Amino acid sequence: MRMTLSEIAQLINGELHGAGDVLISGPAKIEEAGDGEISFISSKKYKHFLDSTRAAALIVDQEYDNLKTPHIRVKDAYVGFLYVLKAYAPEKTHSFEGISPKAHIEKSATIGEDCAIAPLVFVGENCRIGKRCVLHPGVVLSGHVTVGDDCILYPNVSVRENCVIGNRVIIHNGSVIGSDGFGFAPQKDKYIKIPQIGHVVIGDDVELGANVTIDRATMGTTVIEKGVKLDNLVQVAHNCIIGAHTVIAAQSGVAGSTKVGRHVTVAGQVGINGHITVGDNNIIGAKSGVTKSTKNDEILLGMPAVPMMQKKRIDVSLKHLPDTMKKINNLENEIIELRELIEKIHGR
Amino acid sequence: MRMTLSEIAQLINGELHGAGDVLISGPAKIEEAGDGEISFISSKKYKHFLDSTRAAALIVDQEYDNLKTPHIRVKDAYVGFLYVLKAYAPEKTHSFEGISPKAHIEKSATIGEDCAIAPLVFVGENCRIGKRCVLHPGVVLSGHVTVGDDCILYPNVSVRENCVIGNRVIIHNGSVIGSDGFGFAPQKDKYIKIPQIGHVVIGDDVELGANVTIDRATMGTTVIEKGVKLDNLVQVAHNCIIGAHTVIAAQSGVAGSTKVGRHVTVAGQVGINGHITVGDNNIIGAKSGVTKSTKNDEILLGMPAVPMMQKKRIDVSLKHLPDTMKKINNLENEIIELRELIEKIHGR
Amino acid sequence: MRMTLSEIAQLINGELHGAGDVLISGPAKIEEAGDGEISFISSKKYKHFLDSTRAAALIVDQEYDNLKTPHIRVKDAYVGFLYVLKAYAPEKTHSFEGISPKAHIEKSATIGEDCAIAPLVFVGENCRIGKRCVLHPGVVLSGHVTVGDDCILYPNVSVRENCVIGNRVIIHNGSVIGSDGFGFAPQKDKYIKIPQIGHVVIGDDVELGANVTIDRATMGTTVIEKGVKLDNLVQVAHNCIIGAHTVIAAQSGVAGSTKVGRHVTVAGQVGINGHITVGDNNIIGAKSGVTKSTKNDEILLGMPAVPMMQKKRIDVSLKHLPDTMKKINNLENEIIELRELIEKIHGR
Repeated sequence: MRMTLSEIAQLINGELHGAGDVLISGPAKIEEAGDGEISFISSKKYKHFLDSTRAAALIVDQEYDNLKTPHIRVKDAYVGFLYVLKAYAPEKTHSFEGISPKAHIEKSATIGEDCAIAPLVFVGENCRIGKRCVLHPGVVLSGHVTVGDDCILYPNVSVRENCVIGNRVIIHNGSVIGSDGFGFAPQKDKYIKIPQIGHVVIGDDVELGANVTIDRATMGTTVIEKGVKLDNLVQVAHNCIIGAHTVIAAQSGVAGSTKVGRHVTVAGQVGINGHITVGDNNIIGAKSGVTKSTKNDEILLGMPAVPMMQKKRIDVSLKHLPDTMKKINNLENEIIELRELIEKIHGR
Repeated sequence: MRMTLSEIAQLINGELHGAGDVLISGPAKIEEAGDGEISFISSKKYKHFLDSTRAAALIVDQEYDNLKTPHIRVKDAYVGFLYVLKAYAPEKTHSFEGISPKAHIEKSATIGEDCAIAPLVFVGENCRIGKRCVLHPGVVLSGHVTVGDDCILYPNVSVRENCVIGNRVIIHNGSVIGSDGFGFAPQKDKYIKIPQIGHVVIGDDVELGANVTIDRATMGTTVIEKGVKLDNLVQVAHNCIIGAHTVIAAQSGVAGSTKVGRHVTVAGQVGINGHITVGDNNIIGAKSGVTKSTKNDEILLGMPAVPMMQKKRIDVSLKHLPDTMKKINNLENEIIELRELIEKIHGR
Repeated sequence: MRMTLSEIAQLINGELHGAGDVLISGPAKIEEAGDGEISFISSKKYKHFLDSTRAAALIVDQEYDNLKTPHIRVKDAYVGFLYVLKAYAPEKTHSFEGISPKAHIEKSATIGEDCAIAPLVFVGENCRIGKRCVLHPGVVLSGHVTVGDDCILYPNVSVRENCVIGNRVIIHNGSVIGSDGFGFAPQKDKYIKIPQIGHVVIGDDVELGANVTIDRATMGTTVIEKGVKLDNLVQVAHNCIIGAHTVIAAQSGVAGSTKVGRHVTVAGQVGINGHITVGDNNIIGAKSGVTKSTKNDEILLGMPAVPMMQKKRIDVSLKHLPDTMKKINNLENEIIELRELIEKIHGR
């Protein structure tokens, strides 16, 4: 797809400066953009690229003028660029259409209008799939799974029985929804399995990365509320509730029965303990271990997690710790010396 | 399914108090149970729900009496409830039966009685599958795989050639058994692959979570002994031995050639070094890094892991560390001051 | 397969000592080798097995003589043994041949000579697969994927549209190439998805473990350079570049837009921050968190990562920290006492 620069200016409602008939082949990063490509400058950090960029055109904030490169001025260059990115993104990334005769669909399943069900998909009994969903090859929906409208399930996603997925949900390759919770009752010398008869409910506009795992509840429901975004290899245990619009980065995990608040930001490789509550709007730094419940609006770091500023002070102190240990030994010696001196004086 | 309360009392061998003809639709958590649902009180922590619960019936320990809710008294309410949970769990969660003509089964494979092999399953040459196994869609057994009786392999589980799986083994979606060990010999400027010609043997009554990875041995066998339970996204490297009835929580990993003892409890996001031995009955706290071999019955925490009580004392000290650093500076100054004072006195 | 000891001596260009007609059934570890098996002694650590080993034959370095076991002397016993391992490794581990009629291949796809495409494989439109590739069951290539020659894609590997895979690449079960980068623009009370229109390029001789995830670039390319080896469950985020011959152990992750140098060694469960550069030849210890850019040849450990020797000194200090805290309290008291004493003297 190609648009002219003036078409793009119109699309993002911006002010065109320079030749509007330049043909734009696609968006690119400022340091990589070349012939026919459009980029953007939003952060001051990238301003120094203005002179050297080989981009055919730029989207910039309103403060920029006198640029030699043809450009479009908008209120927020970053948002403007997002719309361009969206315009140039392929509308669909699959070639299959309708319901492939090579998919296995149980007769009791219902599939909404305009779905694309690939070859090698399995849809179990009594599944209900909404409109305009795309199920890529290798997707497996066990029985009684409900999927809303406009969902994309990428290759090899599998959803266990009775789970419910909202509208406009995107699940990336290999992710697993509704596997059994990790529950075993110790009994003398072995464990007996606690049946996991609950399920998982995923809200609207959720996006799950690749190879994510979300366990079904022991009883009741593991809940991923609307707008949540989970990155690759994230683990959510049985009976958790992840609050609306919370974002969790790759390889983090939430242990069983924990409630994470809304609008929480969790960085990568974080662990959150079971049976606790994480407040709304928390920010949890990378590799932290949240061991106990938190209030709203906390910013935490470390294992165990403490307020981020405290952790950073601790880290600075830690760097000096080996030297400090020596210093303390010196102090001890000095005190002994002083004591001897005093006793000498005292004895006079 | 529905049972009356007196049927449940009989099932769990308990003492019925109240109307035995109440129809119970299923089990639920004490705080969520409502019309027609049964719950339980075992821990004192939940005792305060006794008055407010809307459960139709309760299972309680023998010490409880004078409850207004119909209830069953048993020696161990938790265990009693487990049996109810089991009774209400669906007997099977799949609709496919027998060997689907849409599965691909190599001619040399043998499949025991009463198995359910779903569409889109691949069973390679010379595989031997026991009785009453359930292979969900997307399961792939490469050649020469042996599976015991009564196993459940959930969707998209794959098992590489020559691996052996015991009886009553449950493997959740997307897990991988027998991928190559991570072995490369450095050679000048690159690595050459060390062929991984061993395999994996999984004992009876093992349960593996979703997206688990267990590598085959370089030579010989990676062993998961009987009764082991691994949570989602756990990694077991080549030539490891995981001892019987050991439990490992999500996102933990064991590096190559390590032997983990029996009845070990490993929390989430733990790393265990390669070529070491972890003693029996160890308990390893979350996010720990076990760097060297341990004795039996150790309780460890931290990276590097140290005895848990020691780690907790260190953590308390760490919180005060920045203040302590200031204190030490003060001490230094005080000593200088004292020395001056003494010298003044001394000089008199 | 079986070879005689003299055939093996010829294969590895070594000096035969003892009966050359011994039939060798396969290689084994020194402590496990038995009847008909060959092992090796390279490290001094294993020398004590020389007397007790039940191996039928040994490969040893040139310094060894007077062994009672038949043996082959070579310059480097370890390398010699690798060749034996290779000779005994099965040439292929799959029974399918050619293009299975049960695979789904889009008409516009091209597949090179001598490929083995299993049943239940999906190859999307305009894919180009080189010669002698093996695609195991459950492999899904979305549209416009390019795969070089001599690649092995194990069961349930999936590759999203437009990704490019080099020659002699091995990808283990369940790994995902080209899932969307984790990019969302905050907008008032929710996030909007940043389209991820880039792709992934994987160089020659790369090996990826099981359930690995590599995200496509937002724009441009996520690059895995030649010879890189990634272990199981490793995460590589959008727009990363992993330098040639870098090795990353299990469960480690690299955040977005980071450039990891060449010949870097990353241990398990490491996290590397986004938008930084890790120098060539770095060694990053297990569970470290690399928070900022590093120079070439650094050896780092800890979270935040610091030079490994510094971290080890800090760890030693930490062990003593609780005692040190007490010591400091004692020092404080001693100083108070000394001050009183001095004042008493001073007051005389």
